Amino acid sequence: MENKLVNTNPTIQVDSAHFEPLGTWTSDKLNASRAANPFLMTWVPGSARNNVMNVTHGEGVYLYDDKGKQYLDWTSQAVCANLGHDVPRAVIETAAQQMATLPFVYGGVGVTEIRTRMNQLMAEVLPGDLRAAVFPSSGAEANEAGIMMARRFTGRPKVISWYRSYHGATAHAGAATGDFRRWYGSDQVPGYVKAFNPFPLFFNHGGNNATEEESVQAALNMLEEQILNEGPDQIASIMMESVVGAGGCLVMPEGYMQGIRAICDEYGILMHCDEVMVGFGRTGQMFGFQNYEGVLPDIVSAAKGISGAAIPLSMTACSEEIMQFFDDKPLGWGSTYQAHPVAIAVAYENVKHLLQHNIVGRVQQMAPLFEECMQRLANDHPCIKQYRAIGMFGCLDVKDMDGRNPKLQHEAAHEAFNKYKKAYAENGLVGLHRYPHIHCAPPLIITEDELLDGFDRLDRSLTVLDEALGYYDDEHRDDNQVAAAGR
Amino acid sequence: MENKLVNTNPTIQVDSAHFEPLGTWTSDKLNASRAANPFLMTWVPGSARNNVMNVTHGEGVYLYDDKGKQYLDWTSQAVCANLGHDVPRAVIETAAQQMATLPFVYGGVGVTEIRTRMNQLMAEVLPGDLRAAVFPSSGAEANEAGIMMARRFTGRPKVISWYRSYHGATAHAGAATGDFRRWYGSDQVPGYVKAFNPFPLFFNHGGNNATEEESVQAALNMLEEQILNEGPDQIASIMMESVVGAGGCLVMPEGYMQGIRAICDEYGILMHCDEVMVGFGRTGQMFGFQNYEGVLPDIVSAAKGISGAAIPLSMTACSEEIMQFFDDKPLGWGSTYQAHPVAIAVAYENVKHLLQHNIVGRVQQMAPLFEECMQRLANDHPCIKQYRAIGMFGCLDVKDMDGRNPKLQHEAAHEAFNKYKKAYAENGLVGLHRYPHIHCAPPLIITEDELLDGFDRLDRSLTVLDEALGYYDDEHRDDNQVAAAGR
Ligand SMILES: Cc1ncc(COP(=O)(O)O)c(C=O)c1O
Ligand SMILES: Cc1ncc(COP(=O)(O)O)c(C=O)c1O
Repeated sequence: MENKLVNTNPTIQVDSAHFEPLGTWTSDKLNASRAANPFLMTWVPGSARNNVMNVTHGEGVYLYDDKGKQYLDWTSQAVCANLGHDVPRAVIETAAQQMATLPFVYGGVGVTEIRTRMNQLMAEVLPGDLRAAVFPSSGAEANEAGIMMARRFTGRPKVISWYRSYHGATAHAGAATGDFRRWYGSDQVPGYVKAFNPFPLFFNHGGNNATEEESVQAALNMLEEQILNEGPDQIASIMMESVVGAGGCLVMPEGYMQGIRAICDEYGILMHCDEVMVGFGRTGQMFGFQNYEGVLPDIVSAAKGISGAAIPLSMTACSEEIMQFFDDKPLGWGSTYQAHPVAIAVAYENVKHLLQHNIVGRVQQMAPLFEECMQRLANDHPCIKQYRAIGMFGCLDVKDMDGRNPKLQHEAAHEAFNKYKKAYAENGLVGLHRYPHIHCAPPLIITEDELLDGFDRLDRSLTVLDEALGYYDDEHRDDNQVAAAGR
Repeated sequence: MENKLVNTNPTIQVDSAHFEPLGTWTSDKLNASRAANPFLMTWVPGSARNNVMNVTHGEGVYLYDDKGKQYLDWTSQAVCANLGHDVPRAVIETAAQQMATLPFVYGGVGVTEIRTRMNQLMAEVLPGDLRAAVFPSSGAEANEAGIMMARRFTGRPKVISWYRSYHGATAHAGAATGDFRRWYGSDQVPGYVKAFNPFPLFFNHGGNNATEEESVQAALNMLEEQILNEGPDQIASIMMESVVGAGGCLVMPEGYMQGIRAICDEYGILMHCDEVMVGFGRTGQMFGFQNYEGVLPDIVSAAKGISGAAIPLSMTACSEEIMQFFDDKPLGWGSTYQAHPVAIAVAYENVKHLLQHNIVGRVQQMAPLFEECMQRLANDHPCIKQYRAIGMFGCLDVKDMDGRNPKLQHEAAHEAFNKYKKAYAENGLVGLHRYPHIHCAPPLIITEDELLDGFDRLDRSLTVLDEALGYYDDEHRDDNQVAAAGR
C-alpha cells in the first residue's frame, strides 16, 4: 500500500456541466463520465456496471433507455415500483409541500402532522391491534428494528427464520436471511437458527407420497421439534416472508401459517412477518399474511410498496402489547431519519392512492389472467418445470436438461441462460435474473393488454431458452412433460 | 399470549380527514390521533412520545410548534439539517422533476443521469483517488457497506474502532459503535475490537504530566501494541469518526491521525473514516479528515450533510484500488434503494448549493466567533468543566459538584439536568440532550446575530443548571475554576 500522506485539501474544481439542467447530458457525456468515475454494484461484480443501460425516463409500465428503446418493466424495479413509473401528482405535490414547509424533524425533537396522520392511517389499514411503531428507511432496517423488538420484549436471544428467504443486508437482517447473501458477512452473527419452510428443494416433508395436509403437518412437527431442541424459552421470534419473494414466490400451503401461529402462542414466541416485498398489495391482499385466514402476526416489517419506490421508507409495526412493553424502556434501535417527514409524506399519499383507486382489488381481478398466462408458459415451454403465482406475483422454475434441477439460486447458471437474458432484453423486457427462477412482477397498474404483451415477450424469450438448453434437439422431443405447479 | 386467530381481513375504513389538505389538522385533532395511535421512540422510552411537541413548520434556523412558539435549532436535528429549514428551491424542484421523470430505477437494472452526475461530482469533491462506490439510505448502512468492503478487500475479519464513538444501529454498525447503544443488540457480533482514542475519560495516555506530543505518541504506541496482540493480519480496518460527534466533539490532537495512517500503511490495514456527522462542512472543511494534514482514508462513509436532511441518503466512498478489487466480485452488501434517483437528486443539488454559496468557507469565517462564545460559557459557568469546538460544532462538558465527573453518557443524569432541559426549552432552544455533554450544532447558515442570540439562550439555561447543581450555594462560591479546554 503506498503512503497516503498527500494533499488532501486541493481546491475543489467542478465541471461547469453540473449547472446545466437535468436531462441535458448527452449519451456521450454520460458514458465518458461513467468511464472516468467507476462505482460499485452490490450483488454482482463491479465490472457489470459497464453493461447497465442509461435509463432516461419512465411512463406507466415502461422504462426508456438513452437510445430510445422501450422496456416493459417485468420486475417493478425489484418489486417496489408498484404504481409503475408515473408517480401520482398528489405524491409529488405533498412531498414538495413537506420539503418547503418542514423538510426534517428528528424524532426525538418533534412530531409532524404528516407522521401523526400516517400513524393513524397505518392503524386503520393494519388488521387487529397492529400499530406502526417506527419508520426506518430500508427493508433491512425495518427488520433490524423488528428483531430488536422481539429480543427485548421476550428477553430471549434466538431468531428462527427460513433457508429460502431474504431479509436484507445489514448484519441482523443478513443473519436472518436464508439465501447465499448471508454468507458475505452476516453468517457469524450469533442467535440465528435456520429452519425449513414447506418448500425444501431436495426432500418432501412427510415423504414423496404425502398429501398436502400430511406434508404441512410434517413440516410443522419438524419445526416444533427443532424449537424444542433449540430451547423454546431461548427463541424470541419466528421471522418469515409471508410469501417468499426473491426465493421464488413461495405461497404457504393451507394450514401451515395457522400452525406457526399456534406454535408461537404455545411457546410465547413472537410471529414476525416480513412484508417488505409483498406488503401493500402485491398478492391481492394489502398484506401477504392476509392470505392465511385468521393469522395475525405480532410484528410486521414493510418497505417497498409503502412508498411505491418513490422515496426510501420502511415501517415496523407491532401489537399493542409490545408497544406498551416499551413504554418505560427504549426500543434500542434508532436511525437519524426514522420517520422522515418527506419520506412519510410520499408514503402517506401513495397509500391513500392505493385505497382510493382500489389497487388491491384490481390485483385480485387481474390475478386469474395472470395465473392463466403463467400456466400457459409452464405448459408450452419444456424448460419450465413448474410455476407458482399469487395476485400479480409469479415465478417460473427453469429445468436444466442435464438434471441439475432443482438447484439453488447461487449455483452458476447454465450458459444457455445468457442467451435467454439477451433475448429478454431484445424483446424489450427488464427484470432481475435469478436462475433457476424467473420472477414475474409487473407494476400493479398494468393493463390487460400490457400484461398479455409482457407474457408474449417472455414467451419468445423462453423459446430461446428452450432451444439453448437443447430441448428442441431431436432426441429430446419427448421430454416436454411439465408439472404445472408444486415446489 | 391470547390466541391470535382473528378476522384479519376486515373492510378497511379510513378517517375522511385524511383527504383534507396537509396543514389543516388542528392541535386537538393531532393530539387525539396521537393518543389513539401510539408509536415508539428509539433511544428513549416509548412514553416520551407524550412530551414531544407538534412541530408545524420551519424557517431558517427556527422551528415552530403548534402553539406558535419559536425555537432556535441548536442541534440541526441531530446534526444534519445543515442548511436549516429552508430547502433551496433547486433541491425541491429537481426532486420533483426526478420524481415526475423517473422516480426509481433499481441499480442492477439501470443508471440514471442524476447518478452519473453525482458520481462525477463526488469524485470532484473528494480528495485523492476517493470515489463514491454506493449510495445507501442511512449512515448505518453506509458503515455496513464500508465494513463489508474492508473485510472482503483485505480478507481479514476484525474491525478496530473506538470506545467513544457512534456508527449507527444496524448490527455491524452497532458492533463497531463504542457507546452504550452497542449493548442493546450488537455486542455479541464477532470481529469488533475496541480501542481508546486520545480522549479516554479516566486516565491520560502517557501519564498526567505528559505533553500533548508525548500523549499522542503514547496513544499510538498503545494502539500499535493492541494491533500486534490482535494480530495485524487479522485486522481489516481501523474505523473512526474523524471528529467524534455524539461522543462529544472530540478533535484529534496534532499528529494522531497521521500516526494512524502510518500504522495502517505499515500493517496493510484500511483506514475508514466515518464522516456521517461532520462530513459536508460541519467542521469548516468539506470532510472532517481534511482537518488532519496529509491524511487520506481508504474508505469514507457519509450521510446527514450530504442531503442536508431533506431526504434519506448516505454514501460509501473508497480508493481506486478497492474499487478495482471488486471489478470481478460483488461487494456483498446491497439495498433496494441504493442510489435512489430522487434521493440522489436532492443530495446533488444540496452539494452544488454548498459549493456555490461557499458554505464551508462561511463556517470557517464564523468559527472564531463560535469558539469565543463557547469559551465565554465555559468561563462564566461553574457547571462547565471545559469545552471543545471546531468549525460550527462544539461541546461543553458538565461538571457535577458531587465529583461524578468525568462520567459516561449512559449514566443517569443529575436531576438538576431536568431543570436545565426545561429552561432550555423555555428559552426557545431545541436540541438533543446527552448529559454530561451539551452539544452545540446550529445550522451552518446561521447569521452572527442569530448565533449570539443562541448562545445567550444557552447562557441563561446554564445559569439554571449552575443553580440547580448547587454552584451558587454559599459554601461553593470558590469552586468556580474551569479548565477552558482539554479532555
Ligand atoms: C422480503 C424482503 N425483506 C427485506 C428486504 C430488504 O429490503 P431493502 O433492500 O430495502 O433493505 C427485501 C429486499 O428485496 C425483501 O424482499
Ligand atoms: C458518526 C455517525 N455515524 C453513523 C451514524 C448513523 O447514521 P444513521 O442514523 O443515519 O444511521 C451517526 C448518526 O448520528 C453518526 O453520528
